[in-house]
Amino acid sequence: MKIVIDTYGADEGAKVLVEGAILALKDEDFIPVFVGNESQLKEIINGRIKDYEIVHTDEFISNDEEPVRAIRRKKDASIVLAYNKLKEEGYDGLLSAGSTGALLAGGIFISKRIDGVDRPSLAASLPSTGEICMLMDTGANMDCKPAYLEEFAIMGKIFLQNVLGVENPKIGLLNVGVESHKGNKLTKETYKLLEERDINFVGNIEARDLFTGKVNVLLADGFAGNVAIKTAEGVIDLLKGELKGVFYKSFKNKMAALTIKNDLKESLGKFSAQKVGGAPLLGVKSYVYKAHGNANEIAISNAIKGLIKYINMDVINKIQGELND
Amino acid sequence: MKIVIDTYGADEGAKVLVEGAILALKDEDFIPVFVGNESQLKEIINGRIKDYEIVHTDEFISNDEEPVRAIRRKKDASIVLAYNKLKEEGYDGLLSAGSTGALLAGGIFISKRIDGVDRPSLAASLPSTGEICMLMDTGANMDCKPAYLEEFAIMGKIFLQNVLGVENPKIGLLNVGVESHKGNKLTKETYKLLEERDINFVGNIEARDLFTGKVNVLLADGFAGNVAIKTAEGVIDLLKGELKGVFYKSFKNKMAALTIKNDLKESLGKFSAQKVGGAPLLGVKSYVYKAHGNANEIAISNAIKGLIKYINMDVINKIQGELND
Repeated sequence: MKIVIDTYGADEGAKVLVEGAILALKDEDFIPVFVGNESQLKEIINGRIKDYEIVHTDEFISNDEEPVRAIRRKKDASIVLAYNKLKEEGYDGLLSAGSTGALLAGGIFISKRIDGVDRPSLAASLPSTGEICMLMDTGANMDCKPAYLEEFAIMGKIFLQNVLGVENPKIGLLNVGVESHKGNKLTKETYKLLEERDINFVGNIEARDLFTGKVNVLLADGFAGNVAIKTAEGVIDLLKGELKGVFYKSFKNKMAALTIKNDLKESLGKFSAQKVGGAPLLGVKSYVYKAHGNANEIAISNAIKGLIKYINMDVINKIQGELND
Repeated sequence: MKIVIDTYGADEGAKVLVEGAILALKDEDFIPVFVGNESQLKEIINGRIKDYEIVHTDEFISNDEEPVRAIRRKKDASIVLAYNKLKEEGYDGLLSAGSTGALLAGGIFISKRIDGVDRPSLAASLPSTGEICMLMDTGANMDCKPAYLEEFAIMGKIFLQNVLGVENPKIGLLNVGVESHKGNKLTKETYKLLEERDINFVGNIEARDLFTGKVNVLLADGFAGNVAIKTAEGVIDLLKGELKGVFYKSFKNKMAALTIKNDLKESLGKFSAQKVGGAPLLGVKSYVYKAHGNANEIAISNAIKGLIKYINMDVINKIQGELND
């Protein structure tokens, strides 16, 4: 099995992607195909991997670029070369920590959508004090129709069952209240649609339960999903800042902070994105995983392992089967 | 000046509303008109207020009731009697800590909308590490058109200038990115509309800046606004829980927690809703203020003072003037 790894886009550069691959190779049998600067990559690898390939390029697509335009014009960008590689026999999956927009645009325009899928979605795992929970969508699809959310539910369910071993995934709808009559036009109509479908739909979930893991797939249009995630990030940063302020306020506070430091780190570590490592791009005809830009090598290694399982479980064919039943 | 006070709906019952009124009477000259159970109210007041009125009722509308239906059918509900009182000469404003939906429905169906206003909005102040920031809307108006958000901007601006003394209120649009081309259909169209209007529109605000007070009015449809607020509440509760877990984990942690306890309380107190006390219902023909259900007497007192200033500054006529220019 060959896994194509786009080495541009991580905050820590190509090194973290190579180190992540080396870590994953301890547990998994695959051939990494690094897309990036050849001499730099060889230097980082430094003989530590026996069997690998490099697709050389110095071009990449940044977060600031308009993704659809960039995918169409920058023929030598790492993500474009990576997607093209997937068309060749024997190249099975793709991992990138780069621009989410470019990854999505490449999925739609180079790999193409699975038959029966209107909108692909990046299924990001949320930090959770309860069960595994994937938020779909997190920002790729701004204006959604009820049918899109229904597709997200099906794709998420199949991924969770096959890759993450969740037996009967609970599907919930992000909404302003738990009652079925609550919400805007989209959520009210989606509620009805989900009730009729043969899935484990458990109803509306309020945003205050974003991280409590009451459901395994939390459905939202990309706008609301993005607002929820960014609100949470903002509040966590703000509270961490306040906490820091208290800790540094006086000598006795500093001593107290030192006492609880490790327990605090462990406790707040639950909200770290590194454990899950990556999010699958569900709905396109290739196996694609997105790692967070600030991923460390453990996150990359976990993302590669997730990607391999995703491939081995033949999830794309299963999605296509269920959506075209 | 007579201020009508609905004494049903606060978590702590009628007492907190009476005590809040007594506190406000130390600074302001007004006659409280309490709507609620007469004998209970007299017992609480216990001779401490010289000049007051009581409108007796034992009926009220709870948070679980469908508000429009309840407003129309429950003719003796406290909020209905309160709104009716406002139609009489000399009754100037209304404060309630009860059902937001019922307050809104009463505003629309009993007081009626200001000419030129499509949708009234409850302008809730957000906790802020920066400037005063009101989120409009927070949940009353689920599906919004760009013109609604434009009206919110005008109403919020006039309220801030006149009641809170903000000179040239900064207006921002809650969105998924700061660039003007970002967002869903609603925010993209609203962006263009706000640019053309003679207001201090400063552009898009990401949800991670919900509490950093970069703008004075943050515009959102009620769905997104509600998701943002509830996400924040959920995350704050979750982190408080984690912190508590760390503090109680061991004896030495408990001692450390004791050391920083007061500083921590002060620091996190910034995110308390009690200081502001209430939110005006902008866009209806009466002066109406909503206090939080969990308000304490200080919050109620502050809400009454805000309401009195709102009345004295003739904000309703100013809104009507600007919207019908």
